Amino acid sequence: MKKFSQWVSSIADSGREFLASKTSNKPLDTTQALADLCHELCSSKGEALGTAIAHEVVKHYRQLDDEQRLSFFTMLATDYGPNAERIISCADNYRQHTDEAHYRALSEAIEPRRVRLFKRINMAPNGTQTLIQMRLDLFRFIKKQPHFKAIDTDLKHLMIAWFNRGFLILEQISWSTQAHILEKLIAYEAVHAMDGWDDLRRRLANDRRCFAFFHPALEDEPLIFVEVALTEGIATSVQALLKEADTDQPTSDKADTAIFYSISNCQEGLRGISFGNFLIKQVVLELQHELPQLKNFATLSPIPGFMNWLQAERKSDSEWLTIEDKLTLTQLDIPQWQEQGGQSESLKTLLMRLGAHYLSHEKSGSQPLDPVARFHLGNGASIGQLNWLGDTSEKGLKQSAGLLVNYLYRLDKVEENHEAFVNKGEVFMAGEVKKMLA
Amino acid sequence: MKKFSQWVSSIADSGREFLASKTSNKPLDTTQALADLCHELCSSKGEALGTAIAHEVVKHYRQLDDEQRLSFFTMLATDYGPNAERIISCADNYRQHTDEAHYRALSEAIEPRRVRLFKRINMAPNGTQTLIQMRLDLFRFIKKQPHFKAIDTDLKHLMIAWFNRGFLILEQISWSTQAHILEKLIAYEAVHAMDGWDDLRRRLANDRRCFAFFHPALEDEPLIFVEVALTEGIATSVQALLKEADTDQPTSDKADTAIFYSISNCQEGLRGISFGNFLIKQVVLELQHELPQLKNFATLSPIPGFMNWLQAERKSDSEWLTIEDKLTLTQLDIPQWQEQGGQSESLKTLLMRLGAHYLSHEKSGSQPLDPVARFHLGNGASIGQLNWLGDTSEKGLKQSAGLLVNYLYRLDKVEENHEAFVNKGEVFMAGEVKKMLA
Amino acid sequence: MKKFSQWVSSIADSGREFLASKTSNKPLDTTQALADLCHELCSSKGEALGTAIAHEVVKHYRQLDDEQRLSFFTMLATDYGPNAERIISCADNYRQHTDEAHYRALSEAIEPRRVRLFKRINMAPNGTQTLIQMRLDLFRFIKKQPHFKAIDTDLKHLMIAWFNRGFLILEQISWSTQAHILEKLIAYEAVHAMDGWDDLRRRLANDRRCFAFFHPALEDEPLIFVEVALTEGIATSVQALLKEADTDQPTSDKADTAIFYSISNCQEGLRGISFGNFLIKQVVLELQHELPQLKNFATLSPIPGFMNWLQAERKSDSEWLTIEDKLTLTQLDIPQWQEQGGQSESLKTLLMRLGAHYLSHEKSGSQPLDPVARFHLGNGASIGQLNWLGDTSEKGLKQSAGLLVNYLYRLDKVEENHEAFVNKGEVFMAGEVKKMLA
Amino acid sequence: MKKFSQWVSSIADSGREFLASKTSNKPLDTTQALADLCHELCSSKGEALGTAIAHEVVKHYRQLDDEQRLSFFTMLATDYGPNAERIISCADNYRQHTDEAHYRALSEAIEPRRVRLFKRINMAPNGTQTLIQMRLDLFRFIKKQPHFKAIDTDLKHLMIAWFNRGFLILEQISWSTQAHILEKLIAYEAVHAMDGWDDLRRRLANDRRCFAFFHPALEDEPLIFVEVALTEGIATSVQALLKEADTDQPTSDKADTAIFYSISNCQEGLRGISFGNFLIKQVVLELQHELPQLKNFATLSPIPGFMNWLQAERKSDSEWLTIEDKLTLTQLDIPQWQEQGGQSESLKTLLMRLGAHYLSHEKSGSQPLDPVARFHLGNGASIGQLNWLGDTSEKGLKQSAGLLVNYLYRLDKVEENHEAFVNKGEVFMAGEVKKMLA
Repeated sequence: MKKFSQWVSSIADSGREFLASKTSNKPLDTTQALADLCHELCSSKGEALGTAIAHEVVKHYRQLDDEQRLSFFTMLATDYGPNAERIISCADNYRQHTDEAHYRALSEAIEPRRVRLFKRINMAPNGTQTLIQMRLDLFRFIKKQPHFKAIDTDLKHLMIAWFNRGFLILEQISWSTQAHILEKLIAYEAVHAMDGWDDLRRRLANDRRCFAFFHPALEDEPLIFVEVALTEGIATSVQALLKEADTDQPTSDKADTAIFYSISNCQEGLRGISFGNFLIKQVVLELQHELPQLKNFATLSPIPGFMNWLQAERKSDSEWLTIEDKLTLTQLDIPQWQEQGGQSESLKTLLMRLGAHYLSHEKSGSQPLDPVARFHLGNGASIGQLNWLGDTSEKGLKQSAGLLVNYLYRLDKVEENHEAFVNKGEVFMAGEVKKMLA
Repeated sequence: MKKFSQWVSSIADSGREFLASKTSNKPLDTTQALADLCHELCSSKGEALGTAIAHEVVKHYRQLDDEQRLSFFTMLATDYGPNAERIISCADNYRQHTDEAHYRALSEAIEPRRVRLFKRINMAPNGTQTLIQMRLDLFRFIKKQPHFKAIDTDLKHLMIAWFNRGFLILEQISWSTQAHILEKLIAYEAVHAMDGWDDLRRRLANDRRCFAFFHPALEDEPLIFVEVALTEGIATSVQALLKEADTDQPTSDKADTAIFYSISNCQEGLRGISFGNFLIKQVVLELQHELPQLKNFATLSPIPGFMNWLQAERKSDSEWLTIEDKLTLTQLDIPQWQEQGGQSESLKTLLMRLGAHYLSHEKSGSQPLDPVARFHLGNGASIGQLNWLGDTSEKGLKQSAGLLVNYLYRLDKVEENHEAFVNKGEVFMAGEVKKMLA
Repeated sequence: MKKFSQWVSSIADSGREFLASKTSNKPLDTTQALADLCHELCSSKGEALGTAIAHEVVKHYRQLDDEQRLSFFTMLATDYGPNAERIISCADNYRQHTDEAHYRALSEAIEPRRVRLFKRINMAPNGTQTLIQMRLDLFRFIKKQPHFKAIDTDLKHLMIAWFNRGFLILEQISWSTQAHILEKLIAYEAVHAMDGWDDLRRRLANDRRCFAFFHPALEDEPLIFVEVALTEGIATSVQALLKEADTDQPTSDKADTAIFYSISNCQEGLRGISFGNFLIKQVVLELQHELPQLKNFATLSPIPGFMNWLQAERKSDSEWLTIEDKLTLTQLDIPQWQEQGGQSESLKTLLMRLGAHYLSHEKSGSQPLDPVARFHLGNGASIGQLNWLGDTSEKGLKQSAGLLVNYLYRLDKVEENHEAFVNKGEVFMAGEVKKMLA
Repeated sequence: MKKFSQWVSSIADSGREFLASKTSNKPLDTTQALADLCHELCSSKGEALGTAIAHEVVKHYRQLDDEQRLSFFTMLATDYGPNAERIISCADNYRQHTDEAHYRALSEAIEPRRVRLFKRINMAPNGTQTLIQMRLDLFRFIKKQPHFKAIDTDLKHLMIAWFNRGFLILEQISWSTQAHILEKLIAYEAVHAMDGWDDLRRRLANDRRCFAFFHPALEDEPLIFVEVALTEGIATSVQALLKEADTDQPTSDKADTAIFYSISNCQEGLRGISFGNFLIKQVVLELQHELPQLKNFATLSPIPGFMNWLQAERKSDSEWLTIEDKLTLTQLDIPQWQEQGGQSESLKTLLMRLGAHYLSHEKSGSQPLDPVARFHLGNGASIGQLNWLGDTSEKGLKQSAGLLVNYLYRLDKVEENHEAFVNKGEVFMAGEVKKMLA
């Protein structure tokens, strides 16, 4: 059976021939041509040619330059936005008769034309991919054109419906996976950059695991993937972890811990549509099934906002830092401090305390200030331990002062943790971490 | 890789254990328990346990009896419907400030709680199937509870988004298909009932083709399928067609025609969400690719509303029937008329003329009265020919007076036909059919 | 990737065009044409056209009638047999110089030309299948042409090499298997005939298992398959077993026993090449892995030679039957004896004792007289129990007097049993069976 | 369904436990232990434990060091060779009675015990692979132990039967192939070494093709693969070809030629068992089917024996070289001659003539002296053209003086060419190549 996209492409191609006569006297590949097609796509009474026109829209859009795309979005913002007049008129009717018919009229009036446009584009081959690309473009434009935010809101709503969890497919990635998928992992790895195929091979060694979510409309394109190491005891250093992989060793029988050391979103255009929470829990279950001897499920995570916060504290009249502390922290200003200062017990004690404090008490509203903490604690994980000089890469030092956290995933505690976190802002921490704070 | 549903099921099961403590003192399997779960599912701030609760909802619903389901829907209609007060208040605000923020507030207010509930249920294993089952139940209740129609409207909207064409998968069905899928074809065949495995085998013979649409969330469940016969010239009798299949003969090189003799929707709970139009065109393209020698693509279709209309005309002061015609038509009242009356040239001429008239001129609003004609003509097909005594089965005689139509699908005419049909109500007919009318 | 056979077929077809010119003036489809092709196939110095000629041989052979096939085999027996003169001459040389060169010369001389012919035929598409068919034909002819036995010996030797265990593929057969494979199970079931698709469906119910061996050169053609029932305790009646299957019930958690109630060879042309021993043990391992709760692995087997032996004993001056016994056994001569005589305790006791005796003591040479006993005891199984009126079908009564045996497969006893059986002719029996003998 | 090897491994493992008791008091991993196992494997009357013992043999062999393997082969040569006495005695009997029974007795006597041993080893998991490894080891030992040649002859005979064409599976290799198979291509490429993954990626670009043969007993291990470039016109330089690949370009519509620029055997232990002839022809057919526009199928091949021959001629009293020629050829002695001498018209004319002569007239017996010429001409190819400085790599200059040949594969000429070549030693050459010779 041929792939779906090929079929639709054929259909659309033959549809295009019929279209050709109608549009042959129009200049192609311009904003106006695209605007005409969009109009046709939305207004077409039937569906006989919907796919063909949608396919044309997709192809046109892909050929536009940035300026043309800007005018395309301007059109979406103005001509395809909500019709306030009609909404208000329907709302007035509804106020007088709050019955089903008037409710539906209002409901329909409120849907902006661009939503219908997006739905129809989604029928074309590569339609979903094009919409994801559009959203990526939008992100760039929004900075200067904040009113484009409304377009993004509409797009995101649709994507949330289309990328429903129930439609996601979990697949294990291994060295037996097809090369054209593996090369995407190299490209998409966002946490600990992959240095080509040899590095990838190590991360798919026998004592490693990798899982990804896929969606049927995005063939061979992972949405998100997580890299796992099977270790004896909880790993505390990412450099050690990456170095140790041995592609020839079989999975160790002694491994009692699964370390989630990297989780990467692949589709920037799906930003804000969360898959990670679900992925981690599903992978925990998968691993429990494959390797019943596993006792611990933990991340090995950076604290990416820590240094930003700390530097601000150092410069300010911080309530968390004594003058002595500030003095100790000057060690951080020495290049390669970790090689010498790493030896300093006082710096270690201080940074560990500050790290524990930052993770558990520094909030933005009711949420942890640190984005990674926000994600894992929001998922119902707890803080297991902090690791001194766990990540001595340049990035690790610059963002997290070399600290790494193990967030623990215990499925039987996830609910309890989650509720306490959401309702009371409570963060569960292992005893040792608590002690640092005291 | 295990199937998705198994994974979610495991996740949900472990989630359920956490739930268990909370719900253990409540009576299970009752409407109230289900109401509590629905409430929890909608209000849950996070998503940590969404899938688990959704899974519970699915399991509870499946155990309810009819009376309990009725109260469930009553709850959906009353407690989970649109909040008129909030809508009106948001609309008032919007009237004063038609800005994005107030638009979104209104937009959000307008979405009934049950829509959120349905979306969350859809995350559960078998969630989609349960919602389809709910809709089936709804169909039964709506007759007595017309206000349930609003629930159905919401469900249908969601299903249209989820069953987007872009997510459908076309698969060829053959004698090499898995038995548990084939047995569904026997069950779902709606046009010409299948008499067990031997009949199925014939319909999957070498000079037959069968295609179906599937959706990733409904594993191994066809949504719709079409049965095709490859013939020399356009087939005119369905009984001949079904009898002639030869499983041992290779596909004839002489076949120049693909006859779509049966198209069956499989999921009654997806009623109103159209797949047929798209399926036929995609299959035409597939067949053109596999067998370039094919020249004609035609259906062999019943006229299911013909006899109903004709009997009404006979009883009324019809402008289409002379007294002589009415006399001729009395032959239809003779049992087994087709065996004798089939011989009557006058009856044949009259019925063929009336059939052509009924198909092309009898409308319900701007649409053909006959549902099958409505479907194919709306897809851009034309009327190729009428076949006398094409279906001599009991059903064929009772509904269509034994007449069959060949609707022609010419992809290069589909647009033209479709537009003329939609805009001007024009029906394209072959010359000979036109002559009958004259 | 297209299937191998299609490719070879194309190659062969284009080869055939080249052949066509050479053979165009010869009469086709006759023994002579086939003889010429065989000659060409064997003598061809290179391999450039080997496959093409082999394909021709295959096609010719398939068109021959019985008489023509008879002359084909006569040719194989006379012209393609061992060359005694050359063998003796080479043997003489070898006697004088027992070195490698003379050994190889003798070794080559001893291979009959037909062995080379068969090897080359095996390269053609469907070559293996054709050779299996040839062997089937041979079986018929051998009765009147005992010298054809030598051809069969050569063919069988080759097949043993080609159907090496290392090349067999075990596959589980279920209701999700492709229909065109399932229909072969219906056709090939040799022990308890299957009554169409509904019966098959029951035998693939959730508490049943089915496994088959396949070989890469015989696509979609099972070589042998075994049917298993999962039961609580050891099943004693095959009629009960076949009736009880419930396709909707999930596999019972209480099942502690796997009953191998039917094992069927599918390719009569592979007769004498044993797969069953290996299949049973592999399936035991598979089931142990899937369902660790299984405690017993046992067959439910007929004693097909029992009645033959018994009737002979009744007519003879048997040392195993007293006159009283013979009197008791006259009950067997009453039609439907099992319905009445089944009640007779004396008949039961006698038949059970005689059954146990027949299985364990009646030999043909050093082997059990009963073919089924020979197979299972030779595999290292032991006799677990005898079941009175276990098979009340016509065949069961006629062959086995309604008795069934459970042979037990305990992998940790298989070696011990096997060695005792092979070396000392010992048969392991459960205590109760032994008691019957006493 | 689990892979076959896993199953057999389990079976063998459980078998090993039974074995364990018997062998527990013997020293493991020694030649003697292996000798005992081999004895047991051959003499075992039944097959109950054949696989388990075979598995032990495989595991033992793999642990032996070189010296131990040498004594293992010595055992095979002496204890497991043909039994001359028995052969002669059987031959004597046969001489007196040339009947079937005596023929079979001789036939059986002539099979050395090691052949039975190899057949039984082949039943074990990884049995085939172990035998291939054994043969590799043999190659090393044979140099000093020429009497081991007899062992190799036996092994090779068996492998020819097992690797029958009818059991080979053709698969296309692409960038969508699994990574663990692709990495083997990098390792096995024997003609133009691959420089890692980026080079591989280029060789799997859209205008390239790659095909390999696999065998069911060697999972994921290619036996042989061929790399093809689709070009406009016949390619003349391999460096240009390797550089030009563009992974993003779709397959050119203008490509009219398939160039087989590299063909590599992967399993050194299968040396002498030819797959290449069959592979090339099958790939020609595959490409004709996929891309009907292809007109030419040609190799781009080195002349690896050319320089060896030429240097010998230069030093001898050659009848093919005038003194003037020898003077011209001194240019070859200048380092980097191709950069300057490449310009010399006289050198070019001379080398092209000598190349054409070498290919077509220099023989070893009746076969071309050049091994690549021997292979392709023996397959029925013809010489299309010679390319000056077609391969300017160090290896290309050293072996072939930079010359490359295009051998042409025209399926409709293959037979004619092959027969003329085999029977009369004729080599078909294009007119231009012939002219060079004149």
